[in-house]
Amino acid sequence: MAGVGPHPAVADVRRAVREALADLDRDALVVAACSGGADSLALAAALAFVAPRMGLRAGLLTVDHQLQPGSAERAQTVKALAEGLKLAPVEVLTVTVGTRGGPEAAARDARYAALAEAADRLGAATVLLGHTRDDQAETVLLGLARGSGPRSLSGMAARAGRYRRPFLEIPRSTTVRACEALGLDPWNDPHNDDPRFRRVRVRTRVLPVLEEELGPGVAEALARTAGLAREDADALDQWAESAFQNCALSDIGDSVTHVTLAVPELEKLPDAVRRRVIRRAAITAGAPSGVLSAAHVLAVDRLVTRWHGQKAIDLPGGLTAFRRYGTLILAISPIP
Amino acid sequence: MAGVGPHPAVADVRRAVREALADLDRDALVVAACSGGADSLALAAALAFVAPRMGLRAGLLTVDHQLQPGSAERAQTVKALAEGLKLAPVEVLTVTVGTRGGPEAAARDARYAALAEAADRLGAATVLLGHTRDDQAETVLLGLARGSGPRSLSGMAARAGRYRRPFLEIPRSTTVRACEALGLDPWNDPHNDDPRFRRVRVRTRVLPVLEEELGPGVAEALARTAGLAREDADALDQWAESAFQNCALSDIGDSVTHVTLAVPELEKLPDAVRRRVIRRAAITAGAPSGVLSAAHVLAVDRLVTRWHGQKAIDLPGGLTAFRRYGTLILAISPIP
Repeated sequence: MAGVGPHPAVADVRRAVREALADLDRDALVVAACSGGADSLALAAALAFVAPRMGLRAGLLTVDHQLQPGSAERAQTVKALAEGLKLAPVEVLTVTVGTRGGPEAAARDARYAALAEAADRLGAATVLLGHTRDDQAETVLLGLARGSGPRSLSGMAARAGRYRRPFLEIPRSTTVRACEALGLDPWNDPHNDDPRFRRVRVRTRVLPVLEEELGPGVAEALARTAGLAREDADALDQWAESAFQNCALSDIGDSVTHVTLAVPELEKLPDAVRRRVIRRAAITAGAPSGVLSAAHVLAVDRLVTRWHGQKAIDLPGGLTAFRRYGTLILAISPIP
Repeated sequence: MAGVGPHPAVADVRRAVREALADLDRDALVVAACSGGADSLALAAALAFVAPRMGLRAGLLTVDHQLQPGSAERAQTVKALAEGLKLAPVEVLTVTVGTRGGPEAAARDARYAALAEAADRLGAATVLLGHTRDDQAETVLLGLARGSGPRSLSGMAARAGRYRRPFLEIPRSTTVRACEALGLDPWNDPHNDDPRFRRVRVRTRVLPVLEEELGPGVAEALARTAGLAREDADALDQWAESAFQNCALSDIGDSVTHVTLAVPELEKLPDAVRRRVIRRAAITAGAPSGVLSAAHVLAVDRLVTRWHGQKAIDLPGGLTAFRRYGTLILAISPIP
């Protein structure tokens, strides 16, 4: 039966793309974001094959970050390759990368801004991203090192807004083999080997040691953990949202300056939910979510669970949390 | 102020033990499980100091696993040390370690059986274990490698049944410094350096690489993740339990052979909760929890969320899951 049907790796990437697009309307435009690397090249090729058979239109966007010599030529190579795959429209998006948040974050911000602009302009129903199971595993380990809990272990979502990631359960090695089988020559981004980047160090140093000491399958286990952690976090957010509505005594309108919560209602909640409600209340009252730490939330929580007449607690954003009679009040300035 | 008050490490371990025992009744007996290693030696010393000041009685148990030459002598050394600390009763528990589940699991099973027997016999209110923040971090990494989700990231509980672990937020280095400051000479278990054990490889190979590549504080981040994951898992278990009671149409008595769940109720639940309800139902209907995998639960879940007339699904324990009209039935043999 040799020669019949595509190479297994090619079949895998095509199936993943087909499943990711199953709900789209006929004639919708799908664009692949493609750096020219093995992951996104396999993605572009799979999309080019699958889309016409599903009655979808398929295009490609490649971003020139202007960070490396020859990046413009490389973008043109990806463009030519995409046109060879009969993708249309195909665009090179040239961006200027700033410095905010470090080199990785700045490049990512510039890339996603350009992708979003182009997708809107072209009327794309969705933008496909080539992140693989290995990328997911790396993201989980980076989140783990932050220690900010299950939400930071959730990794990347298979769907988030306009973006879809068909390859989150596909190993990187499969995309490499698919490119080989299709005669596509992927570009190896030198940044992928640059140990200045935390993600690169996770890929080249941390994951190999984990696989060596704990056995193969660690990347798969990490990706599976991400999926389960995401489901759990979603469910708890849902519970916390309805509990917040239930605990809030003040009207929560547009110009909120304080939130009042009923302590007896808070006391009925499990720790994980009560702390989420407190976090939600602090943000509603005006605390900036980026700087509101778990330690802040815990300090406010002790006003509920370990009440012994503590004084008010200062929170970021000029907020104060204090307990008065049976209520917990989070306010911009103390109520006189 | 030099010389006033105990060494900071000694103060830390004493405070941790004091807080762990705050709820006990006067004259209750607390026993420390002690191998003679730095962690449990610091624990025993802290208990010996703290207990009389809290009106508690304090004893010590040391287990001779009979796995290494000289283990009996070492147990006697720990016993003498404990008597020097004025702990009473002090007992050496000599056990025979089997082979079931591998060397680590077999030693642990034998140890906990002996501790439980002695605690019952002596009437101990609680048994203190010396696990530190580093042990917790190792446990999280071992759980992560299994990929069985947030519950396996929860690590060890600060309290579980008769056991309490006062040092879960204390670094191992603090227990070592406390022993030094108190002039106690800890025993270094050669098993702690034996790379045949996965936990040892995590400690000596994986964690150092994580710290090197992701920065210091990884052990602390892992321990913090454990605490948050445990809270989340507890809250979701609580939700799933009440959702199960709400979805179950059959009487759940002692001699259950099948469980019937209402599909419209299941459909209202978030993924994380619905899958826990299905797991709970399968176990209630007779599936052995140890072999019921996430893949089994997912297959049954698709009878709810992706119904297209699938046939019945076989589960461990001779169980079958199938959908009939608006119900999901989990039964020992198919209802004719």
